[in-house]
Parts: sequence; structure tokens; C-alpha cells
Amino acid sequence: MNAVPTVVSDSLPASRKVYRHGSIHAGVRVPMREISVHPSAGEPPLVVYDSSGPYTDPSVRIDIEQGLPPLRREWILARADVAPGEGRRVRPEDDGLAAAGTAAPPFPNLRRPLKARAAGACTQLAYARAGIITPEMEFVAIRENLGRERDAAGARDGNAWGACIPEYVTAEFVRAEVAAGRAIIPANINHPEAEPMVIGRNFLVKINANIGNSAVSSSMAEEVDKMVWAIRWGADTVMDLSTGRNIHTIREWILRNSPVPIGTVPIYQALEKVGGVAEALTWEVFRDTLIEQAEQGVDYFTIHAGVRLRHIPLTASRVTGIVSRGGSIMAKWCLAHHRESFLYEHFEEICAICRAYDVSFSLGDGLRPGSIADANDAAQFAELDTLGELTRIAWRNDCQVMIEGPGHVPMHKIKENVDRQLAACGEAPFYTLGPLTTDIAPGYDHITSAIGAAMIGWYGTAMLCYVTPKEHLGLPDRNDVKTGVITYKIAAHAADLAKGHPGARARDDALSRARFDFRWEDQFNLSLDPETACAFHDETMPKEAHKVAHFCSMCGPKFCSMRISHEVRAEAARHEGLKQMAEKFRAGGGELYVRADEAG
Amino acid sequence: MNAVPTVVSDSLPASRKVYRHGSIHAGVRVPMREISVHPSAGEPPLVVYDSSGPYTDPSVRIDIEQGLPPLRREWILARADVAPGEGRRVRPEDDGLAAAGTAAPPFPNLRRPLKARAAGACTQLAYARAGIITPEMEFVAIRENLGRERDAAGARDGNAWGACIPEYVTAEFVRAEVAAGRAIIPANINHPEAEPMVIGRNFLVKINANIGNSAVSSSMAEEVDKMVWAIRWGADTVMDLSTGRNIHTIREWILRNSPVPIGTVPIYQALEKVGGVAEALTWEVFRDTLIEQAEQGVDYFTIHAGVRLRHIPLTASRVTGIVSRGGSIMAKWCLAHHRESFLYEHFEEICAICRAYDVSFSLGDGLRPGSIADANDAAQFAELDTLGELTRIAWRNDCQVMIEGPGHVPMHKIKENVDRQLAACGEAPFYTLGPLTTDIAPGYDHITSAIGAAMIGWYGTAMLCYVTPKEHLGLPDRNDVKTGVITYKIAAHAADLAKGHPGARARDDALSRARFDFRWEDQFNLSLDPETACAFHDETMPKEAHKVAHFCSMCGPKFCSMRISHEVRAEAARHEGLKQMAEKFRAGGGELYVRADEAG
Repeated sequence: MNAVPTVVSDSLPASRKVYRHGSIHAGVRVPMREISVHPSAGEPPLVVYDSSGPYTDPSVRIDIEQGLPPLRREWILARADVAPGEGRRVRPEDDGLAAAGTAAPPFPNLRRPLKARAAGACTQLAYARAGIITPEMEFVAIRENLGRERDAAGARDGNAWGACIPEYVTAEFVRAEVAAGRAIIPANINHPEAEPMVIGRNFLVKINANIGNSAVSSSMAEEVDKMVWAIRWGADTVMDLSTGRNIHTIREWILRNSPVPIGTVPIYQALEKVGGVAEALTWEVFRDTLIEQAEQGVDYFTIHAGVRLRHIPLTASRVTGIVSRGGSIMAKWCLAHHRESFLYEHFEEICAICRAYDVSFSLGDGLRPGSIADANDAAQFAELDTLGELTRIAWRNDCQVMIEGPGHVPMHKIKENVDRQLAACGEAPFYTLGPLTTDIAPGYDHITSAIGAAMIGWYGTAMLCYVTPKEHLGLPDRNDVKTGVITYKIAAHAADLAKGHPGARARDDALSRARFDFRWEDQFNLSLDPETACAFHDETMPKEAHKVAHFCSMCGPKFCSMRISHEVRAEAARHEGLKQMAEKFRAGGGELYVRADEAG
Repeated sequence: MNAVPTVVSDSLPASRKVYRHGSIHAGVRVPMREISVHPSAGEPPLVVYDSSGPYTDPSVRIDIEQGLPPLRREWILARADVAPGEGRRVRPEDDGLAAAGTAAPPFPNLRRPLKARAAGACTQLAYARAGIITPEMEFVAIRENLGRERDAAGARDGNAWGACIPEYVTAEFVRAEVAAGRAIIPANINHPEAEPMVIGRNFLVKINANIGNSAVSSSMAEEVDKMVWAIRWGADTVMDLSTGRNIHTIREWILRNSPVPIGTVPIYQALEKVGGVAEALTWEVFRDTLIEQAEQGVDYFTIHAGVRLRHIPLTASRVTGIVSRGGSIMAKWCLAHHRESFLYEHFEEICAICRAYDVSFSLGDGLRPGSIADANDAAQFAELDTLGELTRIAWRNDCQVMIEGPGHVPMHKIKENVDRQLAACGEAPFYTLGPLTTDIAPGYDHITSAIGAAMIGWYGTAMLCYVTPKEHLGLPDRNDVKTGVITYKIAAHAADLAKGHPGARARDDALSRARFDFRWEDQFNLSLDPETACAFHDETMPKEAHKVAHFCSMCGPKFCSMRISHEVRAEAARHEGLKQMAEKFRAGGGELYVRADEAG
């Protein structure tokens, strides 16, 4: 159960890993995925965003016990503002006092943790404010463009609801967005394996996948495998929400092998350390946990500091009370001691830790609605106002911040969430869970929430936290992780299209052309999930010959509208061609040659 | 392969079939489903809309060879405006000249077809305009309310985008909506087995499931089973899109056993009759097919009469041309003959047939976009304007009309579709396929389209045509049908919630209360798919004891936010109770007793 994990490490079909190099920083080498199409298409390969890391690069030898190459290490050390230290000593309670036989094997290849010198800030926000374009910033600028400069100016007709999406993302634009607090680059100095990515309303919409064991099930190997599996299908960040045994060790394996930022909810581990008794939590235990996780390399912390004592009575008449685990733990602590949350009271001290490692804040929405009935209520918005207050404190401390959002919200109440968040939190990036647009479909909450996620992404949410089919029912397994990720890639991409991101439509158009041309293999390869698309096609038309058939099983050969459309187009060209060519000949001043593709 | 179909006919878990009786018409008996909850909840059973017909009523003996009881027969005959006739003789080509051994068995129990006397109109629209409240109208009024009068006035805070949804649906309201053309009740006089339902913007959002064989696969028994399966999970209407052999016979079996309206695209069968050669189609063959299907009892016809000769060149520069099968067939015919569509030219004659049987029009969008690139283009909206013109002709002939809509549309272009349709077609009900909000996820197009469907339903679409995971890849099997239906029930319900339908939230609230109270069985039973919800829960917590556990596998017992919330609530009540009670005591004028549930 706790053997060294085996993970999938091969390319996706028809895909090749390519790297784009930086021009400001020599060491910047940005991975992308090139999907080639059939030569008959006469098209260059399509370049897509690639979150899968070295696992899909056949030239990289994957060794889970070694961990990934620390690509950012040199950049971090070159800034000369951090130093290695002894670090906190790992204690048995960090793994929940895992009994003999149930302990996960320790990661064999530990580094000494880095920390900012003196009380300095080694955050991307501090550098951005100082006018410094870091390699991380150049990396994400190249990454966001996806070779956009090579494309002809595509149609761009979205409605961005006030977002300012540039035609072309420069490294300076990234710096300015980070400096303004409108974007974050989660990049703990102790997680140099991570390929930088940016979260902000003026960039591509990102998605997060949650993994993690619980007291009831799952092992280290399973969680590492889920992480690699999640990024293969497109997760931009991964949250390790483990709450069972071996929390520390599982996290170490995940971090050392993760090319995407890792987020956690430190209160979960803190609670394990005090035997699961919320009232027994102390600031000291929590602080110790923050340092432990910051030294390991966690890139962002969910901190439920907005759950204040005075907010709790606002939840008493709710249909589903407090549904955030972190929120309910803190609420219980506050009530038991009848005092203000220690997270709120010690927030400046938390900032001091985050700035020393560049851990980004993900200010948790501990009072998010857990049902349609509770959406947009007084408790939720009271907490949001507090999160705005905390955002300003974090910014004052040079800390990067994003804000978590709901939850369960019917469609007509979604936009208000974005509008209020932008106003209350000074345009800090919004990071929402769904929202689910109805409560009546457990087993399908990836779908109830994809509806809300696509909409809230369109309105301005910067990152969407996935929901799997198991939500409310159990822990996601490997298949659920994939379904959740693909579903959320759909929502995020639908949002990018509707916002009018330049180039976002390139993949849709390439796939649609493949569809119209009956290039079945290209259709599969260009899709978010080639395996499933191909398998579904095989079910009714399994033969290899059918992969070049100019029809499919839905209509059969005689009724195929696409095939008929080709005939219509040829017919129309014949009918209209001479007439139009004559007109163009006249309109064009009588020149003899006009482009054939303008004659149809 | 063509044996008598076996279908599922048992109740859903914890569900009981109940009937509400009419007060205007004695024979009206409206089926509903009552879902009981655990006695500990102290709640009455939840009443939900029930499209599943007699199949879920244990007191009805299902005999597929006999067909369902003709519940509307008496109502139809009592109007004394129709008469039985010999009807058209069935010909071998009606079944595509199915060869010996491949022919489906004929339905054993045929009735003589009815037709309006003389040139009269036996349509619900004609009656509505004459001020007559038919039993069908009273039936749907009761059905829409779902016992709303029993509920306390629920919260109603939607945004209906101009729809006028009444607090309570009266039979007179239904009549007025039908008379205004804003709603239709698809109810062919030769399909008396159908339980009346209404499609209109001021009623609950409905969903349609497509079934049907193709030249490549599927049999009669499979299609009948799919129909029963689709309505079990919530399909409000079913379209039989068969294009292979045995079209006539398969449709007969489906109609005789369907309690929901059945729609078809008659041009598919007409094309079969002329050997699959579009150019060989004639008005006479098409007309013959309309009469054949009207006599069988088809409740609505998709007619692609908006594809005019002059619209076709507008599609030539599209990425995916014409993707509607009917549209491309007609486009090919128009170009081959270089003349106007016979559907457009003979539209008044088509109306004459529809009014004689009360077949509703579903005016097809033959030029709907098949890709994001083609959304909202000139071809699409030129056709829409023609559909508006045809709507007025149909209305002049007392025919009921709805309008089909796209297709593939990015989120920011969805609302324009509804706004234009309402304006162009005089508020005739809109019936859209999705729309898909991105092209990049074949294999997941139920999800890409559920996003668009929920939004367009919110904006005003009256019925959503489902899309299954197999869209673009193959014919849906039984599992795909279920997935498609559940996904679209989610979209329709999310739309109902956002529109603010009175009572729509009752199910969400009941399920959320069950969730908060750890009534696991109630959660499953109240959900759209109890089997799947329970199966997912079983995966990590299979034991029967876990079905009463006050936690789940996601968080485990120590971290359960719901459980902690209960403690928080109790704690808060203790802390606040005395103070608040004292305040209320004073505020309430010093009365001694206040309700306990107001004290928390």
C-alpha cells in the first residue's frame, strides 16, 4: 500500500513536448504541447497549454524517489536574499503518530529548507513592486501566450466583464499585474520543482484539483499517482487535503514530484496534532504547522481567518450551517473559548511566515453556502468583507493573496459574488469551488458545478476548484479525478472563450475543421480526452477503416450532414463561382487572378 | 434482436405514484411522484414532477404488445370534431423495404386513425382561442403546480428575464398562454396514450431525449427500451430520429407505449423512401410521410422550412457548413434543382395537415451553427427571421408552434439567441439543442452543452434537447441516454431555480436538510439518480451502518464540517439563547412563549 508510487509517464497521442525560451532570462524554458494534425489538413501543429510537467517529456527520466529537477533553484539562489537553514525538526505527530506498519516511507532525498534572510520578503509581489521582472514572471508571460504571436489575429468577440486582457502578454504586463495584486504566482522558494503559473482575472482561467487521503481511506502512493494523473489532464494546481495519517510524509512525496503549485489547508494537520479536538487548537500549534509546511514547499495556504466570532451567529438559521471543514473547526474553537479566532488575531504573524517563503494566501471562505438556500447570505458576505480587510494586511506585508469563493449558488446569484469580491478585495484573484447551481444531483455534482464554474469564470474568477462526481458522497478515486479535471477544463475554456482571450478559439476551430473534414484521429487528438473520444467512436464503429469514414454511426453514410455539406459547398461554388468571380474581377479593377479560396 | 421489448417497470426508491384530480374535467387524473423521507425529519413527502408514465405505477399491468391505456381518447371523442377514417395504407417503403429477416414485428394492436372533420382544426390552439379550457389544459395546470398550494410560500428570488411566471398556474392561465402562442401542448389526436404536458417560457423548463436507430445499428426493442428508460429519468418528450430500416414499425411500437409526446423529423423517412437521394425528394413523398406519421400519432414534427435557397450561400464560408441533417438534405435539394425549398413553398399545405391531427410544429433550425466559429452568424439569423414568418402562417392556421435553436454557441453569445428568437417569432416557445459552449471536448458534450443549456433555459428557452456523451462520436446507448437525461434535468432545474419558479427550491431544500441531518438514504432518494448516489457512497463506505453515520469518507468522523456545524449550532444556541430570548421577550411585547426554532 505504501510502496514507491508508479505513475503514468508517456506522451499524449500525436503530442510532442516543445520548449520556448526566454529572452530576458536565459534559463527560462517554457514547456508546451504541440498536437500535430494529419498532413491533409495543411495546418501547423496546434500548441496548447501544458500543465503535465516532465512526465510527458520522453527525454526526462522520471524517478519518484529522486523527485523532479529543481528548475527554479538557480533563480531563487541568484536573488541572494534567501539562505538555507536547519529547519524545523520533523516530529512523530506530524504524521499523526502513524502506528508501525501504517507509516509511509520517508522521502529519501531531502533538501535543507530555504528562508528569506532577516525579515526580508522573497515574494513575487515584493519583486514586482520593486520593478523586478523575475524569471518566474517571464516564464508565465511566455506560457500564457502559447505562441500567440505566430497566429494570425483571430476573431476576438468576447465580453470580459471589465477584465483587461491584452492582445499579447509581456513579462512587464505580468509584473504589473502581480504588483497590483490582481494576479499571483504561487511559488514557494522551497518548491523549486514547480513550473511557474499565474492566477489572475486578466490571464487564462486556471483549475485546481483536490487530492488527499482521509482517516477512512487512501495511501501515499495513491495520492502521488492522483497528482500526476490530475496534471496530465490539465490541473494547474493541486491541493493536498489529506486529513488522515502520514500527512507530512505524503506531502513531501507530492511536493518533490509536483511540477504544479501545491496548496494545503494547514488547520487540518494542526487539528491532527491536537488529537482532533478543535478546542485544543492553539496559535502555537498552528504556527508550527505553517512553518513545517512552508519549509516543505507548500505554495499556497488556505487560511480561514475570515471566520470571526461575531459572524458565527449569522449561520445559525442556515439550512446547512457551516460546510467548510476549516470554517467549522474555527467556529467551534471560537465558540468553545468564546473569543476571537486566533487566525484573525495573529494574521500579521501569519503574513510574516508567508513572506519569508513566498507562500501565497488563499483566504478561505469558511462561511461559504453549502446549499442553494444559503447562497449570498449575510454570513457569507460578512466574511467576504473581512477577507477584504485581511487582503490589505497581506499586501502591506508583501504577501500574495487570492480569495476563495462558493460553493452552492443558483445561477442568478453568481454574478453578485464576483462583483462583491472584486470590490471588497481590491481585485485580488478569486478562486471558487464550483459553484454548484442546484443541490438535487449528488453523483453528478461535477456537472451541477461546471455550469456555475463556467459562468463565474466568465464573470471574472481566476481559478476554479474542481468538483468530482463523488462530491458529498465519498473520496474521489483516480477516475473521478480525471472526470473532475476534464469537466473543469471545459468550464475554464468556455470562460476563456466568452471572455474573448486572444487565441482561445484556436483549439475549437482546429477541432471543428477536423470534424468537418472527417479527420477522426485529429478530432480525438485535439480533444481534451483523446482516449475517451476514440473509445466512444470505437463502440459503434470499431474498424480502423471507419477512422477515415466520411460519416459516423449517428447518421450513417446516406444522411451525414457534414458529407452533404461538402456537396452543398461544392455545388454552391459551382453555381455561384462564375458569377462571383466575374463580380470580383470587375470590383478588383479587372485583375486576372483572384485567390481561389475567396471564390466560394 | 426484434423480440418484444422488455422494459423497466418498477417504482423509484421511496417513491409512490399519486394522482391529483381535476375540478373542471372529471376525467383528469394527474400523476405525480411522492418521495417519502425518514420519520425523524418530521416532513411531509416531497412531490415531484413525474414524466415516467404508468411504468412506475405498480397497480398498472404493463403489456408492450397491448400498448398503454388511451387516457385522452374519451376527451378527444367528446369534442365531436374528429372522425375515424380508413387511413393511409402502410407500404413496404415505409419501413425502408426492410429485407426478410430484418423486419421488425408489426405492432399487433392497431387503431383506426382519427382526423378532424372537414377542414376543421382540432388543435389545442384552436380551442384556446375559442375560450375552451380542454382537459389537456387542466391536466397541465395541475401538473405544473405540483401541489404548490400546499407549500408555505417559499423564497422566490429569481430573475426571469421578462418571463411572467404566476404564483399559481390555473387552467385559464394555461389556456391564455396557449392562445397567445407562448406555450404549446403537443397532443396529436392519434396519440391518446400521452399524458399532456406544456412547453412554454412561463412554465417549468422541459427536456427532450433523442432516440432512434441508424443504418448502422439498433433495433426496435432497443428503441422502445430507451424510450421507457429516458422517461424514467425525466425526459418530458422523446424524439424518434430513426434513419435506418423499420422506421414506421419502430415508431408504432414507441407511440403505442409512450406516455410522453413523440417528435420526429419526417424528412428522414421521406429520404429513405426515395432511396437516400436528396435530389429525388418531392413534395408528394414528403406530404405522404407527414400523413403517415400524423395518423400514427406523432405529436410534433421538425420541419426545416426555414432553409431557403437564398440562405445557402451564407453558409459557404463557415467552418462546419450545415450540420443539421434535415437542413443539409434540404440545402442539397434546393441547389440540385436550383429552386426554392418545397417545404417553404408548401408550408400552408403542411399547416393543413398539422391542424387536422394537432401535430405541433417544431420549426427546425437547419442552419444552426455546428461550431463556436459559426455561432450567431448571418445564415443562422436569416433562417430565424424566416422561422418567424412561418410561425405567423402556422398561427393563422391554428397550428401550435415551437422554434428550434442552436447548437454550438459560446457563453457570451447565448442571450442574443433568446432575445432574437422572442422578437422574431412572437414569443413562440424556444427549443434548443444545448448549446455546446466549446468544441474541444468530444466524449463530454453532455457537459459542454449542459452549461449552455442551463443558461439558455434561464434566459427563456422552454425546452432543452439533450446531448449525450456520445454526441459527435456515435449513437447513444442506454447508459448514454440516462446520463444525457440526468444532465439535462440538472440544467432545466438550475434554470427553474434561477428564473424563480415558485416551489422549484423545495427539492433542493429537502435534500440539503437531509444532508445536514446525515439522513443518507433520504439524500439518495431525493436525488435525481438515487442508484448512482448510493453506489458512490457504497464505494468508500459500503456498510449499512454507514448509511446512518454522522460523517462520510471525505472528511472522516473527526473533521466532518456538518457534524461540527451541529455542535456549533448547539453551542451558539446555548451562548445566544438566553440573551436573544430575553430580547425577543421584550420585543414581542413580553409574551411568554416564542417558537423554539426562532431562538437559535
